[in-house]
Amino acid sequence: MKIVVVNGPNLNRLGKRQPEIYGTTTLADIEKLVRSHADAAGIELDFVQSNHEGVLLDTVHAAADEGVAVIINPGAFTHTSVALRDALAEIADGKGFVEVHISNVHAREEFRQHSFLSDKAIGVVAGLGVYGYIAALGYFTQDLAPKNA
Amino acid sequence: MKIVVVNGPNLNRLGKRQPEIYGTTTLADIEKLVRSHADAAGIELDFVQSNHEGVLLDTVHAAADEGVAVIINPGAFTHTSVALRDALAEIADGKGFVEVHISNVHAREEFRQHSFLSDKAIGVVAGLGVYGYIAALGYFTQDLAPKNA
Amino acid sequence: MKIVVVNGPNLNRLGKRQPEIYGTTTLADIEKLVRSHADAAGIELDFVQSNHEGVLLDTVHAAADEGVAVIINPGAFTHTSVALRDALAEIADGKGFVEVHISNVHAREEFRQHSFLSDKAIGVVAGLGVYGYIAALGYFTQDLAPKNA
Amino acid sequence: MKIVVVNGPNLNRLGKRQPEIYGTTTLADIEKLVRSHADAAGIELDFVQSNHEGVLLDTVHAAADEGVAVIINPGAFTHTSVALRDALAEIADGKGFVEVHISNVHAREEFRQHSFLSDKAIGVVAGLGVYGYIAALGYFTQDLAPKNA
Amino acid sequence: MKIVVVNGPNLNRLGKRQPEIYGTTTLADIEKLVRSHADAAGIELDFVQSNHEGVLLDTVHAAADEGVAVIINPGAFTHTSVALRDALAEIADGKGFVEVHISNVHAREEFRQHSFLSDKAIGVVAGLGVYGYIAALGYFTQDLAPKNA
Amino acid sequence: MKIVVVNGPNLNRLGKRQPEIYGTTTLADIEKLVRSHADAAGIELDFVQSNHEGVLLDTVHAAADEGVAVIINPGAFTHTSVALRDALAEIADGKGFVEVHISNVHAREEFRQHSFLSDKAIGVVAGLGVYGYIAALGYFTQDLAPKNA
Amino acid sequence: MKIVVVNGPNLNRLGKRQPEIYGTTTLADIEKLVRSHADAAGIELDFVQSNHEGVLLDTVHAAADEGVAVIINPGAFTHTSVALRDALAEIADGKGFVEVHISNVHAREEFRQHSFLSDKAIGVVAGLGVYGYIAALGYFTQDLAPKNA
Amino acid sequence: MKIVVVNGPNLNRLGKRQPEIYGTTTLADIEKLVRSHADAAGIELDFVQSNHEGVLLDTVHAAADEGVAVIINPGAFTHTSVALRDALAEIADGKGFVEVHISNVHAREEFRQHSFLSDKAIGVVAGLGVYGYIAALGYFTQDLAPKNA
Amino acid sequence: MKIVVVNGPNLNRLGKRQPEIYGTTTLADIEKLVRSHADAAGIELDFVQSNHEGVLLDTVHAAADEGVAVIINPGAFTHTSVALRDALAEIADGKGFVEVHISNVHAREEFRQHSFLSDKAIGVVAGLGVYGYIAALGYFTQDLAPKNA
Amino acid sequence: MKIVVVNGPNLNRLGKRQPEIYGTTTLADIEKLVRSHADAAGIELDFVQSNHEGVLLDTVHAAADEGVAVIINPGAFTHTSVALRDALAEIADGKGFVEVHISNVHAREEFRQHSFLSDKAIGVVAGLGVYGYIAALGYFTQDLAPKNA
Amino acid sequence: MKIVVVNGPNLNRLGKRQPEIYGTTTLADIEKLVRSHADAAGIELDFVQSNHEGVLLDTVHAAADEGVAVIINPGAFTHTSVALRDALAEIADGKGFVEVHISNVHAREEFRQHSFLSDKAIGVVAGLGVYGYIAALGYFTQDLAPKNA
Amino acid sequence: MKIVVVNGPNLNRLGKRQPEIYGTTTLADIEKLVRSHADAAGIELDFVQSNHEGVLLDTVHAAADEGVAVIINPGAFTHTSVALRDALAEIADGKGFVEVHISNVHAREEFRQHSFLSDKAIGVVAGLGVYGYIAALGYFTQDLAPKNA
Repeated sequence: MKIVVVNGPNLNRLGKRQPEIYGTTTLADIEKLVRSHADAAGIELDFVQSNHEGVLLDTVHAAADEGVAVIINPGAFTHTSVALRDALAEIADGKGFVEVHISNVHAREEFRQHSFLSDKAIGVVAGLGVYGYIAALGYFTQDLAPKNA
Repeated sequence: MKIVVVNGPNLNRLGKRQPEIYGTTTLADIEKLVRSHADAAGIELDFVQSNHEGVLLDTVHAAADEGVAVIINPGAFTHTSVALRDALAEIADGKGFVEVHISNVHAREEFRQHSFLSDKAIGVVAGLGVYGYIAALGYFTQDLAPKNA
Repeated sequence: MKIVVVNGPNLNRLGKRQPEIYGTTTLADIEKLVRSHADAAGIELDFVQSNHEGVLLDTVHAAADEGVAVIINPGAFTHTSVALRDALAEIADGKGFVEVHISNVHAREEFRQHSFLSDKAIGVVAGLGVYGYIAALGYFTQDLAPKNA
Repeated sequence: MKIVVVNGPNLNRLGKRQPEIYGTTTLADIEKLVRSHADAAGIELDFVQSNHEGVLLDTVHAAADEGVAVIINPGAFTHTSVALRDALAEIADGKGFVEVHISNVHAREEFRQHSFLSDKAIGVVAGLGVYGYIAALGYFTQDLAPKNA
Repeated sequence: MKIVVVNGPNLNRLGKRQPEIYGTTTLADIEKLVRSHADAAGIELDFVQSNHEGVLLDTVHAAADEGVAVIINPGAFTHTSVALRDALAEIADGKGFVEVHISNVHAREEFRQHSFLSDKAIGVVAGLGVYGYIAALGYFTQDLAPKNA
Repeated sequence: MKIVVVNGPNLNRLGKRQPEIYGTTTLADIEKLVRSHADAAGIELDFVQSNHEGVLLDTVHAAADEGVAVIINPGAFTHTSVALRDALAEIADGKGFVEVHISNVHAREEFRQHSFLSDKAIGVVAGLGVYGYIAALGYFTQDLAPKNA
Repeated sequence: MKIVVVNGPNLNRLGKRQPEIYGTTTLADIEKLVRSHADAAGIELDFVQSNHEGVLLDTVHAAADEGVAVIINPGAFTHTSVALRDALAEIADGKGFVEVHISNVHAREEFRQHSFLSDKAIGVVAGLGVYGYIAALGYFTQDLAPKNA
Repeated sequence: MKIVVVNGPNLNRLGKRQPEIYGTTTLADIEKLVRSHADAAGIELDFVQSNHEGVLLDTVHAAADEGVAVIINPGAFTHTSVALRDALAEIADGKGFVEVHISNVHAREEFRQHSFLSDKAIGVVAGLGVYGYIAALGYFTQDLAPKNA
Repeated sequence: MKIVVVNGPNLNRLGKRQPEIYGTTTLADIEKLVRSHADAAGIELDFVQSNHEGVLLDTVHAAADEGVAVIINPGAFTHTSVALRDALAEIADGKGFVEVHISNVHAREEFRQHSFLSDKAIGVVAGLGVYGYIAALGYFTQDLAPKNA
Repeated sequence: MKIVVVNGPNLNRLGKRQPEIYGTTTLADIEKLVRSHADAAGIELDFVQSNHEGVLLDTVHAAADEGVAVIINPGAFTHTSVALRDALAEIADGKGFVEVHISNVHAREEFRQHSFLSDKAIGVVAGLGVYGYIAALGYFTQDLAPKNA
Repeated sequence: MKIVVVNGPNLNRLGKRQPEIYGTTTLADIEKLVRSHADAAGIELDFVQSNHEGVLLDTVHAAADEGVAVIINPGAFTHTSVALRDALAEIADGKGFVEVHISNVHAREEFRQHSFLSDKAIGVVAGLGVYGYIAALGYFTQDLAPKNA
Repeated sequence: MKIVVVNGPNLNRLGKRQPEIYGTTTLADIEKLVRSHADAAGIELDFVQSNHEGVLLDTVHAAADEGVAVIINPGAFTHTSVALRDALAEIADGKGFVEVHISNVHAREEFRQHSFLSDKAIGVVAGLGVYGYIAALGYFTQDLAPKNA
């Protein structure tokens, strides 16, 4: 099984911006963390970030060609990109995708209350921080019995 | 550590309604599953369901008095209950709460796109089915290293 | 055949409030009238009223378990209760329900123009007074030839 | 007592359009049925259909001159004709009119949720199929005791 | 000089509807009154009423062919007829038209606050009763000095 | 009989602004014209203009105390002054007022489509230029027979 | 004279929630304070709080049967309960009710700007803290001369 | 194969209105042009225009009975006629219809941005002038290879 | 302690307008009443009314310079004056102000449902008639024990 | 004569996505088809697709520099790209552009009902499938006489 | 060259209100600063402030009569005064005006996002503090080469 | 001190598009002008333009890393790019940015009235043409005494 983790615009700034507030966890740290979970679950992982909508579309198209599932933190494109919606609709017709937001978008500006992607997604995880990626990964590998039971 | 899992109106119907579609998992099954995860993590668990808004308020007030965290699947009250919001605001000032929806509310009726609770929540998990409860529990007990690493 | 007639909040006040305007017909009178029609048609009838949304949900759940049809005068919950909608959706998947309003809600306040229930109903009868209950009952027992033909 | 039953645009297509779905009941069949009920109740009946708004206005004006009650299935004009509203306002000042819809308009397109007529009507019956005409007729001839009691 | 006075739907009911309120002035009375003013001013007058939008369109087209001015009391079509707007746009390119309303539409229902015609008109006279027709006629024949000066 | 003609903000600029377009008719010219008509009809006339909302309110209050009718061209205050509405409501309870606009406000900016005054007015005359004042005056002095008949 | 003071959902939490901010005044303290004022004025007082909408409806119905005035702090139900509005409409037809809010709802979330109750109330007191109850009580017992004059 | 070309209100004015701007092409010219294309493709053609909505409905009903395709330039009825939508829905269930607008409605008034017909149509051609009719005809007779290849 | 009572436009008409309805209490009577209460409480009082927004601004500025509290009945400026809001924001930073409305604005026109001032106020008293001024004064002088205890 | 055909995001997926539904026609097939028509008409053709908005802008800029006409299927950018609108405005000032949509956007999601481009276009062809490109090409090469006449 | 600088309501409070936050720069200080720049550029300057809309209108009218340019900080009237817009439209037809806001209105309340003036202005400078006046003055005296080059 | 000037999509077309209207000033000319001012003020300047949102994001990120101020003319991205907003929020936390528009966006299409950036900016300069860049630069280098004093 393979999963592509897609990260949208500005997520390359994690850990740089206001570290006294947001901490020093970088996207590279997140990749390492998610990869460790994927490895443990025997999942092949692609981990991509781009500030270019076109590159994100190409990435999703490639995932569609491979027939794999997608975990996407679309950043600001959540609220503005119909093109990303259209690309992800192909994933929705296949293995599906889970939408992840590190912050609780519902507690932010009004325009962040609408996502062009969510109704095509399997589901959405928002506000749970870096753990959101792990939860999304867990969904695809879920084994409902407790891990250390 | 203790967590109160609160389930709103109609969730007592899980497993009864259209079992050929929604499966035969009942709320009792979910409670058993969540409890097994809580036990494994050494967490004390209350698991409540009510069709009465007033009972849910009392439950949240009790949780506030105990100073515990809450996982809530508010059902239809998500979209209509300011009273529940006000009660949960006390939890938000303490350990916080995570909002869970079994179905992907974003792919349903327009009026389900708004939650009176989400901006007070730590975060929201929607559309990931029964796994959503486990993910929410995992948030409170998170240990970011993979479990079976 | 069995039908459950469900009456929402404040309908217990019929006949008490402004009798010089609304007349002195009480909900007990309506029950007697509807019951006489049901008896004549050989229909078993439950007739329920509650000011508690939770009790109404329990009543609808019981009707769903029995697999019977429902006639509902939801009162003010028409406009505010998504929970009632969700409960009635189960009835809609079965024998169905007819929504009845004694007054013509279309001639009243703007917020009464929207019903959370109507699109799940078989149909709606509004403004025909107490006769609306009889018309709804007639729908379920309809024999399109004139009664005294 | 006399009642005029007015049918709006496209209702002449009943029974022709998608008979495998809507059945083969034509407007002529409905007229026969309603007429049999009217005859049984000793009511004189006019039964009119037109695709021309102007003809419908003339029909309502004539009914106003005669001082009779009206049952109207306004079809698409429900949502667009202020002129029909203005004509029916005269009926509302007299014997009144009942608005009938064969289908449940509340379960259809958004623009069908608004009627220019309903607040002037005595009441509305929607979604109860052909029976809606009988229920409306029954309102004007109502004898609240069960027919076969 | 010639002017066509066009009257829309339901205006044939003037004087019939609620005479104790609206008085007994009929449209024929108005025609006589307007005609007396037109005669006095040496103006040829056509005076038309129809409940059929198509007939009104034909009337406006004929006026456009004749190149004359129009006074229109569009009745309910004010708020719903884009077709009438399109026809009158031709008059607006010629001698122009004045829109007249007997009642003060601004003091009535919300939907009467919008006219599809007014922005194409020379101007609008509303709420001045039958005098509105005379005022509109006066506009086309205006001689700003007082008549009996 | 006495009538107070009230002119709102910027109307003192008539004839100064873009004379090649709007002509050279000043407010003083209008006053002279209206006064000649009033004299001919034996009407006492006050003719007021102010750019100060407070002065206009005082003027309307004085008219209310005198119990006279008002013709008002409220200029920009049409769209923004609830205070003027409240003052004119007293006139509406008495002899009433007619609202006049020289230009066709319906053919201008969207925000000019709403008047805070019109539903309290007897009626409105818009777009008929200076003649609008004469038409409004004529309403109060109307004698429906043609002047030179 | 008797007055029923009705307190809605979550008001039982007063004094418990964030005492460093909201102070330690509990609802019991408020009751004692209001009761002392009522006693001084010779008014019989019922003082009720419930988190259950149905219980609040029953309370208002009882007040309607007794024909007494009501002071209500409806809490979150202000913004969501049409059922409470319908029950209070009976009080409005009798002695009337005054709506009280401890906090200034106008300075809070957008959805708190709308009350389903206020247009049926005699009046509203908001933002004046515990004093709001005293002011409402004073309205019913008002003696416009200063107390210690 | 047969196609009915339906033209709505005011289209009989083509070539008459502002010929210095819109040219002198009349609807008769368009009919001749479309007919020459239809003849060349061996298609039987009905070409209808009416200012009467009722006549247009009858025409569409006849086309439905014949089971033919329709090309419609609905003129102003595009934006206002639900009745036309309902009639065309029958065509949509059969051979389908193409909606044509001579002008680019998207560059005109806001109210022309909404069509009651388009979501039932196969497709829409707007702004391509008289060529729009030919393009619509070409759709039904399409042979994707170039004609003169 | 000093308090400035500010009254907005048209309040000088109290007692003059429709005395058979609103009674004969004038603003002078209110001033006398409020002053008697202020005197009894040892409060210095300024009592101002103006129809001029600019004068009201100057008054509020003076109050800000003096550092006193304000009671304001803003009349129609409640709904339209951002300038008054900005001036009162200075008071809000100091002793604060209470907004008073004699009538229940919530039961009046839609546009009266919004206040530009309320979210800057300490609180609002509406609908309690002349008593509203006394209640507002009482807030600033409050001594929660009953006066005659 | 030269025409640039511009294709927006995701159109490279044609023929890949759900071929059992959308068929196996790829964008390369469409290019071949359009090119054959262009060749037959003696038109030079550029045919471009990109998922990058910036590349599409560069392409339109180049077309503006060449002074050629454009046919654009903007895909999802139709609804979101003001930048594309601004670039195409230059084409609109020159030879103009035609907007093409393969699917009937009017029968899809609400957000697809708005185009940022259409009011700058010569016209729009939607829902006619691949034929839409040919129709748009035909517009620029139109010879209104039938090809095989 | 002469420029009139117009300052709207409450700007006389600059430097008085919350000096620890806004600083102690008064409007007199601003006038001195702007005047020093105007003097340096050889520009005659009027500098006006009023809390009275009528006075501001008179000031703008005088500027129109003189044919000079205007710099206006309209304060709260930005969002509410159509009268000021109408007066400034005359300036717009002449030398034009620049709208200045000291604070960044875009970062404040929603109602401050709309200006009735901006579309008539040459341009707008907002959020640049006192420098905004200098920038606006610089626009009228601009010499694009750097001053000290 | 260093400032980065960022120019969004289509700004590379300045001077090319409609030179008879917009003049022949190109973006290169603007760069030269701004650079001369920056040089005179001893400021290091980066001057960037891109039609690619991703490149603009990278540019802003680089500026954030360098801790410099930004002047941005975001072109069409003003109205659509949440991603640019998120990137600029980092600048806002540092030296800040000023938003510049050459044209007066307030006098253009409705959708240009909203900026996703302005509330994060220090301020906005719109409609002052090329001078806007100089004014923005002046803000960062401001010395409030006149240059040639």
